Amino acid sequence: MYSEEIEKELKKQNIEPGDEIKLISKKGEFKGTLMPRPELGDNSILVIKLENGYNIGIKFEKGSKIEKIKSKSIESPKTISIKHKKELPDIGLIYTGGTIGSKIDYKSGGVFMLTKPEELLAEVPELEGIANIDLNPLMSVASEDMTFVEWQKIAKAVADALKKNRGVVITHGTDTMHYTSAALSFMLNGLNAPVVMTGSQRSSDRGSSDAFMNLICSAHLASKSDIAEVVICMHESSSDTYCSAIRGTKARKMHTSRRDAFKPINNKPIARISREGSIEYTSNYRKVESEKKELKLLIGYEPKVALVKAYPNSDPLIIDYYLSKGYKGIIIEGTGLGHTPVSTQNPDYSWLKRVENAVDSGMIIGITSQCLYGRVNPNVYRNLRLLSNAGAIYCEDMLPEVAYVKLGFLLGNYKKEEAEKLLNVNLAGEITERSEADWFI
Amino acid sequence: MYSEEIEKELKKQNIEPGDEIKLISKKGEFKGTLMPRPELGDNSILVIKLENGYNIGIKFEKGSKIEKIKSKSIESPKTISIKHKKELPDIGLIYTGGTIGSKIDYKSGGVFMLTKPEELLAEVPELEGIANIDLNPLMSVASEDMTFVEWQKIAKAVADALKKNRGVVITHGTDTMHYTSAALSFMLNGLNAPVVMTGSQRSSDRGSSDAFMNLICSAHLASKSDIAEVVICMHESSSDTYCSAIRGTKARKMHTSRRDAFKPINNKPIARISREGSIEYTSNYRKVESEKKELKLLIGYEPKVALVKAYPNSDPLIIDYYLSKGYKGIIIEGTGLGHTPVSTQNPDYSWLKRVENAVDSGMIIGITSQCLYGRVNPNVYRNLRLLSNAGAIYCEDMLPEVAYVKLGFLLGNYKKEEAEKLLNVNLAGEITERSEADWFI
Repeated sequence: MYSEEIEKELKKQNIEPGDEIKLISKKGEFKGTLMPRPELGDNSILVIKLENGYNIGIKFEKGSKIEKIKSKSIESPKTISIKHKKELPDIGLIYTGGTIGSKIDYKSGGVFMLTKPEELLAEVPELEGIANIDLNPLMSVASEDMTFVEWQKIAKAVADALKKNRGVVITHGTDTMHYTSAALSFMLNGLNAPVVMTGSQRSSDRGSSDAFMNLICSAHLASKSDIAEVVICMHESSSDTYCSAIRGTKARKMHTSRRDAFKPINNKPIARISREGSIEYTSNYRKVESEKKELKLLIGYEPKVALVKAYPNSDPLIIDYYLSKGYKGIIIEGTGLGHTPVSTQNPDYSWLKRVENAVDSGMIIGITSQCLYGRVNPNVYRNLRLLSNAGAIYCEDMLPEVAYVKLGFLLGNYKKEEAEKLLNVNLAGEITERSEADWFI
Repeated sequence: MYSEEIEKELKKQNIEPGDEIKLISKKGEFKGTLMPRPELGDNSILVIKLENGYNIGIKFEKGSKIEKIKSKSIESPKTISIKHKKELPDIGLIYTGGTIGSKIDYKSGGVFMLTKPEELLAEVPELEGIANIDLNPLMSVASEDMTFVEWQKIAKAVADALKKNRGVVITHGTDTMHYTSAALSFMLNGLNAPVVMTGSQRSSDRGSSDAFMNLICSAHLASKSDIAEVVICMHESSSDTYCSAIRGTKARKMHTSRRDAFKPINNKPIARISREGSIEYTSNYRKVESEKKELKLLIGYEPKVALVKAYPNSDPLIIDYYLSKGYKGIIIEGTGLGHTPVSTQNPDYSWLKRVENAVDSGMIIGITSQCLYGRVNPNVYRNLRLLSNAGAIYCEDMLPEVAYVKLGFLLGNYKKEEAEKLLNVNLAGEITERSEADWFI
């Protein structure tokens, strides 16, 4: 509840959270949706969700006025009835949760997940003209809560969907979509169809939502393209002109809130897709082969793998901590070309001996760079050679997150020696042989 | 030593490592500097440093031929004698190590650090026309080995240099230069002069070295600009046209090897500098004030602070590990808007209780985003509110590395309550109030 004063004012005008209001205060006029009072904080601060989707808190003071503009609209959720159209391709749509199916919760003032994807589909009539959609509301998990168990379930659902469909779209929260896309890229061995992950940065009940266009472009890709890879399909820029298809092992969420948050790192986008369905291929990719190939599910996963950052003053005993907990592998996010502190002048901070010890104890240690762009290289500086001699494996131009997912995948499906060998061998586009000059900011 | 066969051939022609040679083999012709055999690996592979600076290993097979082009040139190191010129400004030059003063070591085949900065200065006669240079060869530490102890020493050296000079240039290895620039930004409280950090991505004995231009542009900045901040001055693009001055608390090394590796994140460059000395200011900055301000050195530092990344399957007990080791603070690199796993469906992976427990035990927990670009925001999703209610502090648009350095700085100079309050208050440009649309890739 808000303060007594505010509640009195709201009652007088029959205003409830969810209604559109105007607040006139010393700070100016604010129009938007009235939010309920947050659980904590000053109860004399009125919270309004502005049209741009952000919440603002304004102190309700003497002289402040509230006006009701419109009551909240409560619609009964629509659903779709699906009729099969012979002339259209069949695609699978696997729903896993995330902003793309989320709505504002007027109780907590935050955003919560929808559990019925049919409600979302009903909002996107364009889909009906693109493909017959084989809907699988697999789970409703926020992307920050995804683990390897969900990756395994999604991989299985994709394999199932591909038995009946030419391609698959997966909706997913954006936060860890690039971890999942990497996992699927490795798990779906011998993939011979487009698998398109998509999501949205603004929930689908917001005017500026990117959910619809992302979903439509993804459906086009799954219906028409001959890309035999896992890709992420999201806004290419901050305008609504095109979506980008980015290789699942080369993608990264690079912005907390922009609609074009996903960027290819050490790679180019594979394709550019318009809402109308045009697809322009912008770099090489693995193509669908007409010969029937068998999809092999490699869904073993070793979760005792860690991603660890090396930085000034960082504690190298963190490696021993993971060793003592039975971890089988660590990917180090080194600095620059793949450095860690190795100094003898500050032995407390030297990572060299700890890496050596971990490798001797049977752990696999991979080296990547926190720069993100570029390639690690043990042959340039002396300190890098030392780490390399200690048995650390340099992961070329692989993203740290992708190397991390890959190491868990390898240890879950292969013997240690084989896993060690495969870590810096390209399996699913995660390593490129040669970097190109225009692959940078 | 190389294989007997190779050594025989080398002896015959009086070729030694360091000489320029041509190798004619089945794989083609290769011209470059002969490197000594690496400590490990096949001894029948000849290692040649090509003109582009990279090493190549070519098997010496039947029919292969080696030709000597030029003996290695051994020059006695030049030094400079410094004459004070009244008409030029005085600047300090603090030398700390790194590629900018490194040379190839023909023994290990890697790159090692020079200890005499005079040698480097002798190579850059342009400096004599820009300023009187007050040289301080403070240390020779590889940037991956820098710790808070070195930060403190450098801060003191800057304060000393500013007693006699109008500005300071600091040469530093590139790997962790942005950590040091953040540390100096906080430690040099009340700074009223330009402090310019620079380095190079290619060692100064390579043709493509960026060392000279970076040093020259930095000297111009320290001699003429009215920027009262710590900045990083490095190549703006991959060509030799301009250098960029990037705020020390908003810079990040974003590429392992490119000369334009440093980029501003959630910020614009402050200035663009030409080799000839033109300075174009491109955004707001703190200006030198004519009134004499007192520089206050705040060089306390609490090294028991960690930077921890949250990702799928990540172990939240890592927080307890640091707690048990007496750590006072942790900066979490969350996903998206500042998430960590908080799930009840996978309680082993939920960070919520661990964060709550750490805060209750007196630790400061700050939240940043591994997206790097954008701003964390606890008010959008329910899971974010939960973390915020648990006592975690959201660090706005601060880089994870900067928040990490800042937390150690705050705990080293202020009481805990004060440190907690200051973490998400802007002290040295590390937090911007409003993000701008063109601050992205």
